[in-house]
Amino acid sequence: VGVTVLVNGAPTSCVDASDRGFQYGDGVFTTLPVRQGVPMFLPLHLARLERDCGRLSIPFPGRDVLLQDACILCKTRPDGVLKIQITRGIGGRGYRPPEQSVPTRVLGIHPPPDYPPELWTEGVEVRFCRTRLGINPSLAGVKHLNRLEQILARMEWPMGEIREGLMLDMDGRVTEGTMTNLFAARGGVLFTPKLDLCGVVGIMRALVCEGAGELGLAVEETRITPDELYAADELFLTNSVIGVWPVCRLEGRIFPVGQATRELSRWLAVRIQEECAAVCTG
Amino acid sequence: VGVTVLVNGAPTSCVDASDRGFQYGDGVFTTLPVRQGVPMFLPLHLARLERDCGRLSIPFPGRDVLLQDACILCKTRPDGVLKIQITRGIGGRGYRPPEQSVPTRVLGIHPPPDYPPELWTEGVEVRFCRTRLGINPSLAGVKHLNRLEQILARMEWPMGEIREGLMLDMDGRVTEGTMTNLFAARGGVLFTPKLDLCGVVGIMRALVCEGAGELGLAVEETRITPDELYAADELFLTNSVIGVWPVCRLEGRIFPVGQATRELSRWLAVRIQEECAAVCTG
Repeated sequence: VGVTVLVNGAPTSCVDASDRGFQYGDGVFTTLPVRQGVPMFLPLHLARLERDCGRLSIPFPGRDVLLQDACILCKTRPDGVLKIQITRGIGGRGYRPPEQSVPTRVLGIHPPPDYPPELWTEGVEVRFCRTRLGINPSLAGVKHLNRLEQILARMEWPMGEIREGLMLDMDGRVTEGTMTNLFAARGGVLFTPKLDLCGVVGIMRALVCEGAGELGLAVEETRITPDELYAADELFLTNSVIGVWPVCRLEGRIFPVGQATRELSRWLAVRIQEECAAVCTG
Repeated sequence: VGVTVLVNGAPTSCVDASDRGFQYGDGVFTTLPVRQGVPMFLPLHLARLERDCGRLSIPFPGRDVLLQDACILCKTRPDGVLKIQITRGIGGRGYRPPEQSVPTRVLGIHPPPDYPPELWTEGVEVRFCRTRLGINPSLAGVKHLNRLEQILARMEWPMGEIREGLMLDMDGRVTEGTMTNLFAARGGVLFTPKLDLCGVVGIMRALVCEGAGELGLAVEETRITPDELYAADELFLTNSVIGVWPVCRLEGRIFPVGQATRELSRWLAVRIQEECAAVCTG
């Protein structure tokens, strides 16, 4: 086995305990699959990391250096999951960052999750979580390292049939899954929660919206109540590692794997093949 | 210089990048002053760490092992600031913790902050922050490692005359400072924000409430608006490292260092001397 973790480009898994990532969760991250040695949609993930660093005023280490690290790790494990973390680095006095932060970058490559293939074809069972998402526009949309709400939510049910929990915000609107974004289809229109108050704006969410555009499906970002969700024709979940998972069951209610979900899954499969081919030959 | 950082009892400052503290801010902490080799009010801090670990279902490493580590560090720097962090440790699949978490404990001893002594006698200048605290009863009160709200708030003003920023919650109620709890005195009664929706329940806040009881001052935990704060007779801030700071100026309004603040400061000074004496002789 070759290198699986790089901290600032060095083959180690050691970070300093005084790093603000460890002290305060002061950083951002992204996770993406690697297929045939190609980190999927890496430019989108790097753009997102840069945008999220900007939201927190963390200096961005630069796309080139992250790309370099990613390439080294993809050789170790050509089919895996790549995680990229950027923190504000070491230093500062209490919460106040130092005048000149030197960010820490940590990249790690992991085995792919071993989900059974039926999850993509037959769909997944989903529940509602009791743990809510606090509302805070300052952090909304950012994939930051403050993830206790998701952890408490994920601890509510044991490993097993239920694959994801949906989270409401403090006002009772459906926002996202603990690790996924959520779409509902009704009357030929796609709906997905607005993420201006809380939640993570996922890369796969953006890709699916792009696909919907190409397929002539309207997408509305909106506030969604649990009752509106129960009234949907189809539901599906997205994230970069899983792509699209149809929801077949929500709190006991059955949903079919519908046309919009199937069309978008097919569109995504083609897009992924193109991405592989373009990078492998390019 | 001797040992300044212990990770699980070992003299190193290296933590694994896969530690859930670094991955998700999945942990808790506390900070306390060390005087003449004595970690001040350590039993209260250990009790708080145990309670906060319980809130997040993190196994508590035990008071004895934390006390042992603390004693080693206090020998290195008999007058300093001790920070104790406990994380859920390494492992788990995504947000879901492993079945059996093995917590990580990190203790570090740091030089004391070099605040000028007038801050305690003449008071500090304070502002309101634009960054709000998200409301979430699941995390309210806990001194956890998800501190991005405090960091964004602390970044709003430069180092200088202003020593603290007050934070409102998303509903506009005054909750706390970025690193302190807040008290207001009016008509001989102390008021302090209720911390059931957000905020950190500080050890010094509890001590001051105890002192108020001994001095015959009523304390009310309540919701406080900025206007009610402006109407107070006296304001002061508390945390374990500073003790009590009178507020002499809030957004340009002048406050006197009043009687309640002075009496409580004196009560605390005696309590601290007793604590030193009891431990040093005991």
